[in-house]
Amino acid sequence: MSGEYEIDHRLGDSAENVHIGVWDNSLDPVCSVESGAVVEFECRGAPNGAFDQDSTVEDLEAMSFEGHPLTGPVAVEGAQPGDVLEIELLDFEHKGFGVTYFYPEAKDKGLLPAEFDKPGLHIWDLDDDVGRFVDGIEVPLDPFPGIAGVAPADDGEHSTTPPRRVGGNLDIKHLTAGSTLYLPVEVAGGLFSIGDCHAAQGDGEVCVTGIEAPMFVTARLTVRSDLEIEHPQFETTGPFTPTGSDESMYATTGIAEDLMDATKLAIRHMIDHLHEQRGLKRSEAYLLCSAAVDLKINEVVNQPAWTVSAYLPESLFPN
Amino acid sequence: MSGEYEIDHRLGDSAENVHIGVWDNSLDPVCSVESGAVVEFECRGAPNGAFDQDSTVEDLEAMSFEGHPLTGPVAVEGAQPGDVLEIELLDFEHKGFGVTYFYPEAKDKGLLPAEFDKPGLHIWDLDDDVGRFVDGIEVPLDPFPGIAGVAPADDGEHSTTPPRRVGGNLDIKHLTAGSTLYLPVEVAGGLFSIGDCHAAQGDGEVCVTGIEAPMFVTARLTVRSDLEIEHPQFETTGPFTPTGSDESMYATTGIAEDLMDATKLAIRHMIDHLHEQRGLKRSEAYLLCSAAVDLKINEVVNQPAWTVSAYLPESLFPN
Repeated sequence: MSGEYEIDHRLGDSAENVHIGVWDNSLDPVCSVESGAVVEFECRGAPNGAFDQDSTVEDLEAMSFEGHPLTGPVAVEGAQPGDVLEIELLDFEHKGFGVTYFYPEAKDKGLLPAEFDKPGLHIWDLDDDVGRFVDGIEVPLDPFPGIAGVAPADDGEHSTTPPRRVGGNLDIKHLTAGSTLYLPVEVAGGLFSIGDCHAAQGDGEVCVTGIEAPMFVTARLTVRSDLEIEHPQFETTGPFTPTGSDESMYATTGIAEDLMDATKLAIRHMIDHLHEQRGLKRSEAYLLCSAAVDLKINEVVNQPAWTVSAYLPESLFPN
Repeated sequence: MSGEYEIDHRLGDSAENVHIGVWDNSLDPVCSVESGAVVEFECRGAPNGAFDQDSTVEDLEAMSFEGHPLTGPVAVEGAQPGDVLEIELLDFEHKGFGVTYFYPEAKDKGLLPAEFDKPGLHIWDLDDDVGRFVDGIEVPLDPFPGIAGVAPADDGEHSTTPPRRVGGNLDIKHLTAGSTLYLPVEVAGGLFSIGDCHAAQGDGEVCVTGIEAPMFVTARLTVRSDLEIEHPQFETTGPFTPTGSDESMYATTGIAEDLMDATKLAIRHMIDHLHEQRGLKRSEAYLLCSAAVDLKINEVVNQPAWTVSAYLPESLFPN
């Protein structure tokens, strides 16, 4: 898919190449590239430098999150509203550490804010292949951009937190190297920005963070006037399990008449399982769910109750 | 997990071994077995014999669904409320054909009832490994019970359609041979029933049926007084992709402030993709989504918008 490539443009993460917390189609592009150009983006982590290898939960309490720092926007020549921007994700390179954290109840963030009155944080030592958690647990690394998007047609500033039809904070863990993302273009040049990279994440990102990590991302940007889409679409080869092959999973189920309630039940039961059967603290369990447990929708048709399950790979644990 | 086993009891699918459409703790058990017994259940398909290899959509229009036929209930000696029933799924044997169908809009079933005014049906020729769809598309078979449950404590008749905390219509596609399901017991003996077998299904079962197929199921039933759970839990080795390894997928995304709306958007876009890019009729696309496309929750924390994606394995299509 990617083949050989040469980098046409390099964008460092200095202030002039980064916008923080907002999408805004009036932002001046940091550069303009031809369709088909390969761009290397240096991306700050979502915490924007608030943490390092020695950080503790006190640093989280002191942090003031002002929104995601994104590298861009890049104008792609020829892109017009109604076109599709094809983003071939070619390479990711992290900087050796990452962080997963959740906020205290008062901030009302994450899937289960009411169940954790205190914040939680884990600093990950990252090597090429794995991140190290507690008790010998290792999470395989499969980096991807939490945020990749183009500017919305609506004028003004728009928060980077919610995803939109033009992309943004999609948090799709399968947008790994070798994947291709398609985004609907709404403004001339597209105005593509990227960031919020995660070294790994479970489907759902339940505590509100993956393994947040500053990173270099290399991507080829191509205008596709032959396509038309309403929401993002993508091609991926996963991975769909940590090992890339079928392996043993333990799963907890949530059943409810609301899909979000079913999702919350599945994760609550998984936190119970990790605490009671695996000996993790509940805060550690919540962090691990966000980094490595996958949410699947089993059925959405057996009126009036839906089934969602949370899948824990056994391969995360030491033998 | 399963090891060697001998079948201790065989239950055919004759009327005296089958209850239809209801869970009811006053049903007399069809047999009582010791904890650890291996039972072979012959299970009628959900359509209860309404279709054969030559059926057409007219047979669907003539069918009157009276609820799922389930084989059982089996009392397991020693099971008491508060215990867990462990069901080791040892073997599945289908009978050579299956059916996937959706009802017309008027019946208000399935994820997208308003988009299909007419019903749809596909009869699958099943061999050991695959079911045959249209245009050379083949879906690998990984049989599982759509329904496996114990009797609820609440007296009276309860519909077999919705899943409950005691199991039932879970439609978890990963409950394949080699998997183990854990159910919370609410009445003495548990009163276990099983049926609604699917030869394959996508996560979501979006058109309301998988590949519905009559089947023999062999399972070991064991009382676990050492466990306590609130909802079903399970161990599985998948498969998590049709080939059992990472492979190419095309995915469509739904983004919305309600998780069910996001799910509907993802499937709508996948139907569009299968129709426009793959040449399937829209009714065929809906059937194929239900049989082989997987719904994953990408994120449920980026307030106020959630991301759900539908994943189509490229390996279903002929080279």
